[in-house]
Amino acid sequence: MPKLVDHEERRKIIAKATWNVIAREGLGGASVRSIAKEANLSLGAVRHYFQTQEELLEFAMQLVEEQVTERILKHLQSSLPPKEQVLNILMELITPEEKKVEMQVWLEYVSYKIRKKELQKESVHETISEILHRLKKAGLLKEEIVLEEEIVFLHALIDGLALHILMGLVPIERERIRYLLKKELDRIFVE
Amino acid sequence: MPKLVDHEERRKIIAKATWNVIAREGLGGASVRSIAKEANLSLGAVRHYFQTQEELLEFAMQLVEEQVTERILKHLQSSLPPKEQVLNILMELITPEEKKVEMQVWLEYVSYKIRKKELQKESVHETISEILHRLKKAGLLKEEIVLEEEIVFLHALIDGLALHILMGLVPIERERIRYLLKKELDRIFVE
Repeated sequence: MPKLVDHEERRKIIAKATWNVIAREGLGGASVRSIAKEANLSLGAVRHYFQTQEELLEFAMQLVEEQVTERILKHLQSSLPPKEQVLNILMELITPEEKKVEMQVWLEYVSYKIRKKELQKESVHETISEILHRLKKAGLLKEEIVLEEEIVFLHALIDGLALHILMGLVPIERERIRYLLKKELDRIFVE
Repeated sequence: MPKLVDHEERRKIIAKATWNVIAREGLGGASVRSIAKEANLSLGAVRHYFQTQEELLEFAMQLVEEQVTERILKHLQSSLPPKEQVLNILMELITPEEKKVEMQVWLEYVSYKIRKKELQKESVHETISEILHRLKKAGLLKEEIVLEEEIVFLHALIDGLALHILMGLVPIERERIRYLLKKELDRIFVE
């Protein structure tokens, strides 16, 4: 019997190899060849998932988004009150431990898309937008809140924090950051 | 008489060529050769300023910082009240028109430094930190303000906004962003 390939498993192995190469050498150093070497697979096996550097980056980013979405869904399925859920999601988006490589892939992706002038959607932006729209619909936000402005504000804060933690520029503790974000949510939530 | 080279002028020409190449092709596509071609200069003339890709990036970033610092100093020398000055500086830091290329260089620089684990200082962070320390010293900030936390908060907000404007994710007008930042300053300034 021929050996069966577990495609989902292999896809993840190649994604992690791709992330590692991007994290170590940047997009400039990432090629089908270098990733095949990192994953200990043949060129052909890797080419099945992407062939050009652009496809490589889309592939790597897609897996980052899937992973982040999965973690967010877990928070949304918890039985905590909405404000706690949102706070946990925001912390999830800025916590750097498992996120370090994800953020590096994201940085390369953003740089690339800005260069090519073809950035259309961004997953964290969509997540924050959707959460705030849902909260508004559920009547959980103050009347005077301008949704469009709060999305811009909260998204800027979250991405700025995530980036600066990654850069080593944030000397305050995780619990204190959580407290600051909670104050922001207190500002927009009804009592 | 031999032709004299205006070093300051040439330095700027090479910096702009370097920015253009990075903005167009990313750090991966930037080499002494490609920059010499962009600047219409000999390899030797460019090598006078940098020889390796790392030096190239440091050179490009240094010129970005000089330019930003110059613009900030102009605001500090104005005769406007402190809060207005600070607001103008914050807007300066996020305005993307002339900043687009600067931000692209900055993104490549940050990615590179994170990869090499050698980021130590960051100029916008230092600017915001210094401004808030000065305001505190001048007695212009509320008693209860925790400086360390406000630096983290304001810096995250500014860099997040700058990045998202560059990414085309900010649908609200410049004047509205100014208003949101003013509200943030109102929160920390004494009446």
